[in-house]
Amino acid sequence: MAKQHLDPAAGPVAGDTLEAYLQNQATEFLRALRQHRETGGTSSNGGGNGTEETVDAARALRRSARRISGTLHTFRPLLDTDWSEGMRPELAWLSGTLAREHAYAARLDRLLGALNRLSGCSPIPAQAASEPRQEKSTLTVGAAKAGALLERQMTLARTRAHSAALQALGSSRFHAVADSVAVLASEVPLSPAASSADLKPLAAAAEGRLTDAIAGLPLVSAGHPYNAEALVHGLSADPAPQPQDAPWHQVRLLLRLHRYAREVMYGTESPVDVRLLNAGQALDRHRDAAEAATAAASAARTPRIAPATAYALGVLHADQRHEVEAARFAFRQAWLKETVGTS
Amino acid sequence: MAKQHLDPAAGPVAGDTLEAYLQNQATEFLRALRQHRETGGTSSNGGGNGTEETVDAARALRRSARRISGTLHTFRPLLDTDWSEGMRPELAWLSGTLAREHAYAARLDRLLGALNRLSGCSPIPAQAASEPRQEKSTLTVGAAKAGALLERQMTLARTRAHSAALQALGSSRFHAVADSVAVLASEVPLSPAASSADLKPLAAAAEGRLTDAIAGLPLVSAGHPYNAEALVHGLSADPAPQPQDAPWHQVRLLLRLHRYAREVMYGTESPVDVRLLNAGQALDRHRDAAEAATAAASAARTPRIAPATAYALGVLHADQRHEVEAARFAFRQAWLKETVGTS
Repeated sequence: MAKQHLDPAAGPVAGDTLEAYLQNQATEFLRALRQHRETGGTSSNGGGNGTEETVDAARALRRSARRISGTLHTFRPLLDTDWSEGMRPELAWLSGTLAREHAYAARLDRLLGALNRLSGCSPIPAQAASEPRQEKSTLTVGAAKAGALLERQMTLARTRAHSAALQALGSSRFHAVADSVAVLASEVPLSPAASSADLKPLAAAAEGRLTDAIAGLPLVSAGHPYNAEALVHGLSADPAPQPQDAPWHQVRLLLRLHRYAREVMYGTESPVDVRLLNAGQALDRHRDAAEAATAAASAARTPRIAPATAYALGVLHADQRHEVEAARFAFRQAWLKETVGTS
Repeated sequence: MAKQHLDPAAGPVAGDTLEAYLQNQATEFLRALRQHRETGGTSSNGGGNGTEETVDAARALRRSARRISGTLHTFRPLLDTDWSEGMRPELAWLSGTLAREHAYAARLDRLLGALNRLSGCSPIPAQAASEPRQEKSTLTVGAAKAGALLERQMTLARTRAHSAALQALGSSRFHAVADSVAVLASEVPLSPAASSADLKPLAAAAEGRLTDAIAGLPLVSAGHPYNAEALVHGLSADPAPQPQDAPWHQVRLLLRLHRYAREVMYGTESPVDVRLLNAGQALDRHRDAAEAATAAASAARTPRIAPATAYALGVLHADQRHEVEAARFAFRQAWLKETVGTS
């Protein structure tokens, strides 16, 4: 436990707390980077998508990159402006590039899992299961072909993302980011204000941006189960991600910034706020399901596919859009726990 | 108000109450039959699907046929056995034959409405709508083709059902049913037990069969919104109606028998039990959505359809299966109102 962080009011001044947090994250970043190199993450020889250790290392890299970037944003007035403004897009580029490979793998898992579930091949979720199902695979031709098509498309995208990540990690742009983080690990470029300022108003502002964005969400309709809103444009001609999802994705990012600001204030090892955790997981599920639904719809536009394949992809798309709706319902449930005083 | 029915304990004996109810329903049946003939329901000259009056008359015919049949079943011990056992299958045949035409029309409406909703062309349900949408029709090629295919298939089925109904209404089998109902309108063949017996135990038994069947429903999982159970076999190879729906359909029939038994006891004009009404409507919606989902899946197996059509039908199928799930949730909500004493 990082004792000095448990009570920010009685703890060190703002600059010290912020510095300690950023140094910790920078150290984590450098450790993950070393691990990634040692486990072959920068070698393209294998041609594969990395060992489990490499995957863990990449996840740790992304994790600290996001935290550093978020902290630079929330506590901007306490940091050297030019330096932090220059560093944020570079960190975003890095974590975005590293995230893509993992995202395609996770999306394929989600889509294949859904195809199995929709074919009655796998146990239904624990909450609803009464007896374990031992049915054999009964994937229809359409579901099997849809699965194969998605596997081809996602694997191709994943391989490209893997190459892009490898290329990024070998680039001079990446080395510049790594150098900046190395500097951060030893010395955080604080602004003159940092020695006297308070972290609380800045953290409160981050929370305010979150609650404002949540106030703009259609939580009333999200609270009516089966409101059928998520699928309202399920057959629309526009293949782009659905505009109705954007405010939820935005809340997901703001929730993350709020969580990181809390980490800065209370330490990374302070007890997790279960409400924030559940709300965040619901929004992750929202994002994942929305992207999976888009992937199913895109796959259905592949030329010359069989009608049975297209049908299965339609069912899959609608299923994932309902997951989107379910995630909104779950988010609302998690978030409103505050108002009834459960915490 | 049928005053003599308001309090069955203080009212006439069982036989009289039962006789009055059956005579009323038989009279309704004969009136509807006359109306049906007068509005051209038995003429096939028009080739169409009947005027509004004919449709109303057919509905009234079905309505009283169902009530007579249900009452014969629930209060069997009070009626001449041979007569009532002989009449029930004939009434079931008649109302089934008459119902089919209407069912295809309603199914097409439901499916086209859903295609429009899924294309973002129509206002979303009132509960969720904040501003009225004025969007133009943006039906994709797939949705439009799926709609046209369904329209062709449902219209063909409806026309066949119309001819079958016309043929039935002209058949000697139908005339025998009509004669039996005419007898019923003047004299109900009661069993010797009817003069001394009580309606209550028989009505209670009908209610008992209903509550037993409801106890067998998976209401716990139905109460978890977005449990994803209804779509578990959404892609299964078996095109038959889903076995998981059967117990719900059975409860729908038992609920109807319970309602009719209440009508016998309390009169047809006594206040409607809102809980039963809501529960029944949820089960109607369950049945309609389940059949619409099956129709979409069947249409998708039409040879040589375009992938875009098949995709739209897949989305539509999944949408209707979610309606099935939503209807189960609504049924549970309506039904459980009893236990908290709201009535």
